Amino acid sequence: MMDLHILDHRLRVTSISKSGLEHFTHPLIKLIFLRNRTRCKFFSLTETPENFTLVLDEEGFKELQPSEHLQVESSTWLPLNVVSNGNVSSSSQAVGVTKIAKSVIAPLAQQHVSVFMLSTYQTDFILVREKDLSVVVSTLKEEFSIYQEVEGESVPVRCQDVTHNLQKNGKEAIQLTVHPVLIPPNQFCVMSLDPDTLPSIATTLIDVLFYSSSPKEDSPDQELDCIKFFSFSLIDGYISLVMDSEAQRQFPSDLLFTSSSGELWRMVRIGGQPLGFDECGIVAQISQPLADGDISAYYISTFSFDHALVPEEDIVSVMGMLQHHRKEAATC
Amino acid sequence: MMDLHILDHRLRVTSISKSGLEHFTHPLIKLIFLRNRTRCKFFSLTETPENFTLVLDEEGFKELQPSEHLQVESSTWLPLNVVSNGNVSSSSQAVGVTKIAKSVIAPLAQQHVSVFMLSTYQTDFILVREKDLSVVVSTLKEEFSIYQEVEGESVPVRCQDVTHNLQKNGKEAIQLTVHPVLIPPNQFCVMSLDPDTLPSIATTLIDVLFYSSSPKEDSPDQELDCIKFFSFSLIDGYISLVMDSEAQRQFPSDLLFTSSSGELWRMVRIGGQPLGFDECGIVAQISQPLADGDISAYYISTFSFDHALVPEEDIVSVMGMLQHHRKEAATC
Repeated sequence: MMDLHILDHRLRVTSISKSGLEHFTHPLIKLIFLRNRTRCKFFSLTETPENFTLVLDEEGFKELQPSEHLQVESSTWLPLNVVSNGNVSSSSQAVGVTKIAKSVIAPLAQQHVSVFMLSTYQTDFILVREKDLSVVVSTLKEEFSIYQEVEGESVPVRCQDVTHNLQKNGKEAIQLTVHPVLIPPNQFCVMSLDPDTLPSIATTLIDVLFYSSSPKEDSPDQELDCIKFFSFSLIDGYISLVMDSEAQRQFPSDLLFTSSSGELWRMVRIGGQPLGFDECGIVAQISQPLADGDISAYYISTFSFDHALVPEEDIVSVMGMLQHHRKEAATC
Repeated sequence: MMDLHILDHRLRVTSISKSGLEHFTHPLIKLIFLRNRTRCKFFSLTETPENFTLVLDEEGFKELQPSEHLQVESSTWLPLNVVSNGNVSSSSQAVGVTKIAKSVIAPLAQQHVSVFMLSTYQTDFILVREKDLSVVVSTLKEEFSIYQEVEGESVPVRCQDVTHNLQKNGKEAIQLTVHPVLIPPNQFCVMSLDPDTLPSIATTLIDVLFYSSSPKEDSPDQELDCIKFFSFSLIDGYISLVMDSEAQRQFPSDLLFTSSSGELWRMVRIGGQPLGFDECGIVAQISQPLADGDISAYYISTFSFDHALVPEEDIVSVMGMLQHHRKEAATC
């Protein structure tokens, strides 16, 4: 039996407009680089073509001044984390969201619980709304031993206390909207960094995050159809970076590390229109076929769209699977 | 005969309010750390208890958005630099503003030319208003070979072209206002840094410049009566830093270097009320007695006050000199 941990972070999901980012340079640099000036323990910043998605705990959130450039999702979100014997579970060869597709993602979708996924180099966080917590616990208590982290201690959640009428209905309850997907040509890598060496890449990271929209004099034109996607997270002292190979070239090669296989990843970007936060089953729609094919995947939700990253060598079969899945959805 | 160079920078002198600095984090970090994103070649930022003084060329100035937090002196200023045989002149043992007190500072004061001084680790810049340039050339052409730097070339200034009626009057023309001076207990050091190692101190420098007003949890209370004074300049690729020994402790000791003597400096802060930009003779008032005593001094003008730095071992005799000078001024 695997463990599910409800982590001790109360999170806000926000977005900063492209043109508004410079107004947030001061608090963001503090949150990213000056650990002894802030109590923020959960910080994630993801640039997409639309905006910057910022997921952060309440200590981090209070650093942000209200602004016309800042959109805030109204809920408080809690991050869940699946572990087995203290390590990330490994019932298959695949890593990432694929491992939790059937045990977590699908059951929550069936209970109409919205999830916001945040995969990092280290683990996969499943964010659920605080108000949905009792449904989540009721839904997952058969499959998992559930613990709530309280000030560094893991306290077992007494599931008999949770009384919630789960929806008994099966597949027919989910009216899946089939969202268009986009597969840009960028190659991505998922990397980490010793937090003590973060100062060494500070100016490069600042350049990429805060100044990359203004053209650099010596940089070539962006490759056509490539999309801008860059994600940095600093969560409980662990750093994770997701960037494409062009951004990677700007960093010193000796400090960032990736998994031993050094895999490159391709992106499946989900959503032709901004997805919002209330629709359920979006992650399930993608992770289900990936789980069926045992294909590893990172999954990063942002304010407007969702993003799955799959191994480069699997992208053709993933495209096939998604098309097949779509046809099925369209005909039922 | 020494050379006087009129450097190829057209400068603006501005001030940012203490509470307004964070709104300028984005352009300032670009100007300090991202050399390939800007054409700015002359940048100096000095924090004093009142505000931040920013002296920068037109390329740098255009990065600053107009704001209630930004005050701009209306003139364009040109930096002058005294050199002898390509090196900084050395007619005495003393360094800094002391060397140019009698040859430059005093004659310009007599002609009612306002100067704004900016000493750095490398040299001393004498800023004069562009509109005063012909008076400056007329005043200094007897003592100096004057060159104007134009796109990297030194072009001799044909002084016979400059026709300007100098004021023939002597000492009596200068009605010196005797400004109060303050001598805080801080010990200062004047340092430099290889520009290629600037990224290594980026997070520390960002912390000191942009976040030091918010209390750090592990820092002790500021020593009583110490004043906040921190200066960073990046001029033609050379970095200069002036900071007190408390700030110095935050930087790695192996990257910043100071002169071989490793001297500590004490500050004479000039002005009980903000000095403005129109009064002449303020620098002369301080540098004259220092020159008489052959005491080295750095001199940094800021938006509100002037600051001379003298060797720690000379501070008692400097205090005596200034008192003597003041008494003379008061009785004449």
